[in-house]
Amino acid sequence: MKKLPFLLLALASANAFAQTGKPEKLIQYVKPIIGTQRMGHTYPGSTVPFGMVQLSPETDTISYDQNGKYNPDVYKYCAGYQYDDKTIVGFSHTHFSGTGHSDLGDILIMPTTGKLQLNPGTADKPLSGYRSAFSHKNELSEANYYKVKLDDHNITAELTTTTRVGIHQYTFPASDQSHIILDMMAGIYNYPEKNVWTYLRVVNDSTVIGWRQTNGWARTRQLYFAISFSKPFSGHGFKNYVSGSVYRGFWGKFNQTKNFPEIAGRQIKAWFDFKTTEGEKIKLKVALSPVSMDNALANMKAEAQGWDFDKFKQAGQQQWEDELHKIVIDTKSKTEKENFYTGMYHALINPTLYADLNGEYKGLDQNVHKAEGFNNYTTFSLWDTYRALHPLFNIVDPDRNKDMIKSMLAHYDQSPEHMLPVWSNSGNENWCMSGYHAVAVIADAVVKGNADFDTNKALEACVATARHRDYEGIGEYMDKGYIPDERSGVSVSSTLEYAYDDWAIAQMAKKLGREDIYQEFIKRSQNYKNVYDPKVGFMRPKLADGTFRKNFDPLTTINQGFIEGNAWNYTLFVPQDPKGLINIMGGNQRVVRYLDSLFTMQLPDKFFAETEDITRDGIIGNYVHGNEPSHHVAYLYNWTDKPWKTQERIRMILKKMYGPTPDGLGGNDDTGQMSAWYIFSTLGFYPFAPGADTYAIGSPAIDNAVINLAGGKTFKITVKNQGDKNVYIKKIELNGKPLEGLSIKHSDIMNGGELVFYMSSSHAK
Amino acid sequence: MKKLPFLLLALASANAFAQTGKPEKLIQYVKPIIGTQRMGHTYPGSTVPFGMVQLSPETDTISYDQNGKYNPDVYKYCAGYQYDDKTIVGFSHTHFSGTGHSDLGDILIMPTTGKLQLNPGTADKPLSGYRSAFSHKNELSEANYYKVKLDDHNITAELTTTTRVGIHQYTFPASDQSHIILDMMAGIYNYPEKNVWTYLRVVNDSTVIGWRQTNGWARTRQLYFAISFSKPFSGHGFKNYVSGSVYRGFWGKFNQTKNFPEIAGRQIKAWFDFKTTEGEKIKLKVALSPVSMDNALANMKAEAQGWDFDKFKQAGQQQWEDELHKIVIDTKSKTEKENFYTGMYHALINPTLYADLNGEYKGLDQNVHKAEGFNNYTTFSLWDTYRALHPLFNIVDPDRNKDMIKSMLAHYDQSPEHMLPVWSNSGNENWCMSGYHAVAVIADAVVKGNADFDTNKALEACVATARHRDYEGIGEYMDKGYIPDERSGVSVSSTLEYAYDDWAIAQMAKKLGREDIYQEFIKRSQNYKNVYDPKVGFMRPKLADGTFRKNFDPLTTINQGFIEGNAWNYTLFVPQDPKGLINIMGGNQRVVRYLDSLFTMQLPDKFFAETEDITRDGIIGNYVHGNEPSHHVAYLYNWTDKPWKTQERIRMILKKMYGPTPDGLGGNDDTGQMSAWYIFSTLGFYPFAPGADTYAIGSPAIDNAVINLAGGKTFKITVKNQGDKNVYIKKIELNGKPLEGLSIKHSDIMNGGELVFYMSSSHAK
Repeated sequence: MKKLPFLLLALASANAFAQTGKPEKLIQYVKPIIGTQRMGHTYPGSTVPFGMVQLSPETDTISYDQNGKYNPDVYKYCAGYQYDDKTIVGFSHTHFSGTGHSDLGDILIMPTTGKLQLNPGTADKPLSGYRSAFSHKNELSEANYYKVKLDDHNITAELTTTTRVGIHQYTFPASDQSHIILDMMAGIYNYPEKNVWTYLRVVNDSTVIGWRQTNGWARTRQLYFAISFSKPFSGHGFKNYVSGSVYRGFWGKFNQTKNFPEIAGRQIKAWFDFKTTEGEKIKLKVALSPVSMDNALANMKAEAQGWDFDKFKQAGQQQWEDELHKIVIDTKSKTEKENFYTGMYHALINPTLYADLNGEYKGLDQNVHKAEGFNNYTTFSLWDTYRALHPLFNIVDPDRNKDMIKSMLAHYDQSPEHMLPVWSNSGNENWCMSGYHAVAVIADAVVKGNADFDTNKALEACVATARHRDYEGIGEYMDKGYIPDERSGVSVSSTLEYAYDDWAIAQMAKKLGREDIYQEFIKRSQNYKNVYDPKVGFMRPKLADGTFRKNFDPLTTINQGFIEGNAWNYTLFVPQDPKGLINIMGGNQRVVRYLDSLFTMQLPDKFFAETEDITRDGIIGNYVHGNEPSHHVAYLYNWTDKPWKTQERIRMILKKMYGPTPDGLGGNDDTGQMSAWYIFSTLGFYPFAPGADTYAIGSPAIDNAVINLAGGKTFKITVKNQGDKNVYIKKIELNGKPLEGLSIKHSDIMNGGELVFYMSSSHAK
Repeated sequence: MKKLPFLLLALASANAFAQTGKPEKLIQYVKPIIGTQRMGHTYPGSTVPFGMVQLSPETDTISYDQNGKYNPDVYKYCAGYQYDDKTIVGFSHTHFSGTGHSDLGDILIMPTTGKLQLNPGTADKPLSGYRSAFSHKNELSEANYYKVKLDDHNITAELTTTTRVGIHQYTFPASDQSHIILDMMAGIYNYPEKNVWTYLRVVNDSTVIGWRQTNGWARTRQLYFAISFSKPFSGHGFKNYVSGSVYRGFWGKFNQTKNFPEIAGRQIKAWFDFKTTEGEKIKLKVALSPVSMDNALANMKAEAQGWDFDKFKQAGQQQWEDELHKIVIDTKSKTEKENFYTGMYHALINPTLYADLNGEYKGLDQNVHKAEGFNNYTTFSLWDTYRALHPLFNIVDPDRNKDMIKSMLAHYDQSPEHMLPVWSNSGNENWCMSGYHAVAVIADAVVKGNADFDTNKALEACVATARHRDYEGIGEYMDKGYIPDERSGVSVSSTLEYAYDDWAIAQMAKKLGREDIYQEFIKRSQNYKNVYDPKVGFMRPKLADGTFRKNFDPLTTINQGFIEGNAWNYTLFVPQDPKGLINIMGGNQRVVRYLDSLFTMQLPDKFFAETEDITRDGIIGNYVHGNEPSHHVAYLYNWTDKPWKTQERIRMILKKMYGPTPDGLGGNDDTGQMSAWYIFSTLGFYPFAPGADTYAIGSPAIDNAVINLAGGKTFKITVKNQGDKNVYIKKIELNGKPLEGLSIKHSDIMNGGELVFYMSSSHAK
């Protein structure tokens, strides 16, 4: 066949993917740099899907100052990195992605040349310490590969990982004064009492092992590690920074600062000396374990044999390819693929694996446990992730989601409070945010048939948690049907969250044939009505005596009884019963008007000043996309007579709230929830109320997509007449038949099939 | 037969023991109160032989003051108790016996009535805190049983133990305000940084578990525990005493002070509330583990089922009876039996078992290990105990001694410095004192045929330790034959100690047929000659250039190159070669005169002011019995022409240095070494140089004795014509034949047999 120009053009377009040809590498569209500027709080470094290690550069961390005073800037460094910064402090091995509070930043490594400096220096005077200036021009961030030039030391740093091992490759200049610094005092959200203990042992001139204990967001957390150097160091040193009344005992017999085999204390730094020739590469392997140094060594031995850096990079990137290929999309532009696959990436890096290869992990009860029959996970930011992230896993990573639930059930077994996790990391509950949304994650999986765990035991755990009277007003909620304003600063949002969680429990109970539990919790799920004030048309704090709080401002987020939000957004938080909500709000017309106002009103400046976690970019009108309680809101029109408004809003939010740039996220990614919202909404449907087996239809932004399911099935989404203005849906067909209503079922997807959207630039009235 | 008065008298005498009758209970002679006043540093509380728990009252502990300044009084409380004190602070579960430095004092429990007070108060104002006044009149201290009335609370406290569990029985008055306080901030040798972390979990209203980490003499030490209450508490509370910049996070959602299931932090106290009726008894079981809370619970379940306090007391006391019966003595007075059996008691409470019932322990390398084929021990105060304590074990507890050596070899395997222990406790080396005397313990066992461990591996460990060039001048010692004064403040005593240790290695090498090692170390064993200055007739610090230090005072213990001693005593420290020593000192006459002077000279007052660890009572003339380097000295006359002086001195030392009173020990008991000296010397022989299989003859103070050996053999000692003045030996027969010379062999004892002494009140010239 004659090669025609248009064929070449076709091949060159972003739609070069064809069922007949080799699938394109999707990793090219993953840009971990997205969200690293300002509010996204993502990190640009390396990790594999759900990996235990997140090896990434710190541009600063900011601690509490020397007087122990909180520095509000610490918040910017939840992920340790801000795109606008000009220096890199070092590379540490654990990071949260997209959180609004933080911890971790363990085991900071920094390669340097020249005179040894053990303090990190400051951003404005990098040469005063070991940090280095750098430029984004000399920085590269891919899935499981990060590279940057450290200008002040003339060192090129490359990072990759396996599941439990961080691998560094440093290209040095010629120098007699090359060092690798191990700063065990460094951490994210550091403060004077954070470092509890550090132990280091130099086993030989290329092996270092140790552990540290911290008291941070995770209250009692130990992390064990092993470091292997590709080249023996010529010498090493330790420094203990705790002064004053410390019992040093007879350790004074030794010169522990130079070439001594061990050190222990609260504030420790170490360094390793080398002579390097021009272009010489020194590599490090840093293996982690939650249990022991021996386990860290075993993890390293099993996962990271040898020193072939590229091999480890490729292996991790292949893991990413495999995950990304679970949803293959066609889009008109590269931008949408970058948003989508970076979103997939951000959605598939948490929760994180938290166990050694032998299955051992440190449990919530401070004991070592061995996970039998599941992989243990942690980093459950459940207030965020029950909404779309875990529902996404039920489609693309169902087995992992079952393991995550088993991890939550183990947490429950180990919990002194006998509760499922609220916000947990590294064998510690930190109680952040509100609600008991683990029940929604579990219910959603059970209802969708993705549950090989003991579902009755799981139901007991959900019920016990939801009946924990002492926790955050649950007792009053059970007795009165709402949380009184006097009891809690977030009485309204918590009442609404509990009502939704209770509905999820009821769905699960129904699925399991537990009529008694169903009745108890379906009744509780109606409690949202108790905090609605029809006089003002908003959810509103209610006192113990039954009256609504007098002074009330539906715009402000401060002290109105809502967590991280205002009445305008939260009033809509009834995903379990949109018809009921519309009813109490006065019917379709009033709700449509309310929603329209939400998306178009102008906010006063004071609103932005007082509200954390979002920027102007995270808000459309008064609709706060940057924070999770509103994530279902744009779909709410589906239950009115104007569903076309959902389609319009969704397409607008996709365009406005997400971009393939460092500041492309309008709010914290929240361990993948923001990204999962993008994934679903781009495909055209959204898990409006996890715990239901249905998805609300939105408006697909793709040309077409294939979800590659386990067992070889596929769910194809075809979009006819797609276009930037063609946001409205004329018709939908599911497996060749017209779709009634605006939802599809989970089984529709998981059985395989085809969903065809017919788009239009106009809509019904 | 007519019962005659004299028969009754005979029966009533202390010699009522007869081979034909029931053996008398020996535990009646054990008075743990001996040594609790002033320097002995023993504790009056409960423990079983070599038990992991030492449950004993604290009368004070004294910390560094609030400004972190060292308080010299802290030294008095190495065992937590001083007889002269009038108040009891509480009862804690771990204590050293007789040390000169300290740690432990973990898990302090105090029962109280009345208003809850969480601070301990002060000795002069006991009512200001939870401590209580008490009187010795209402105090009873036996082996494995302690009882005292707490006057301020009107509570009677009784303590007993099993190997791993401390058992408390408190008899309360009627009160609505009865409490049991758990003070996790308390400890012995406390100071501001000592408490690293504490975790507590209230599992239910009668079970509490937890762990603590401390940084003290043991640098990185974790202790896990489980507490079971015989009666449920009606409520409990926690208090966290760390103020200032601490991240408390969202734990603020809970009222953690009252009835909350868990707490963690650096400085924690807890309390448990009860209502009690008159005479009501509440019991506690406190199980320890070096590994985990689960292991502590398992230890408790296996060792301490039920609540029969007397049963546990009896079982432990029966263990004591069994140990004490290994040597059965007849003496004229009860006093000597009290000294002897209290000495046996103090000798058989260390080293301490350090492993859970499942064999697990925390090793020197911070990893959990499982002891296979041995029981793991700790508390190796080797500078003291190699001299007579471990030699005593080779006779009465040979299997345990083998296990202790296996524990030391495991320590060596785990040691980052590749050394045998120097002074180790709880999986930590603390490097206290000098020498590498573990080699003497191992050599002594090997030479005496008590070694089922890998003896060649053990020899390698000894050799590696003795060749550790960087440690305390060993390198210089190896190169020059002595440690130069410039290198070490204890250059002379260390040189002497190394020379002796090296000789012990040589004996072991010879026994194992390792001629190369033998030659190397027998040569080193002569190094003592290098620090003898014939001009002054003393061992003396020598500089690197070979000259002796100019300014030198043989009387003072300060800065003369000796550890805890002076030249007068240390010059005699050549137990491996007494003939060689006599030779360089100028012959028998001069040495006899030297020894006589040592025992009779008057010391200036300044000597007492400057010297720790001993009192005037610990010194005879200038002979410092209160400290170990002199323990072989009185036997030295045996190598001169006047061995009768040894016999005289020994009997005098026995009488002067030991008494059945609270201040009956003239110096620190040093984890049993002082007591072991008494045991041997009372029986009439002493392990003059461990590593030799011989014992030097002294002068027996008993009427007769039987050593009951393993396998049913006995070694009988019969003393004819015994008497206070009859200290001199006319003749000795071993198994019916006259004994040549003044020593017996280890095999003479262990094969069974009879040694007969014929005493006299006069001696040869």
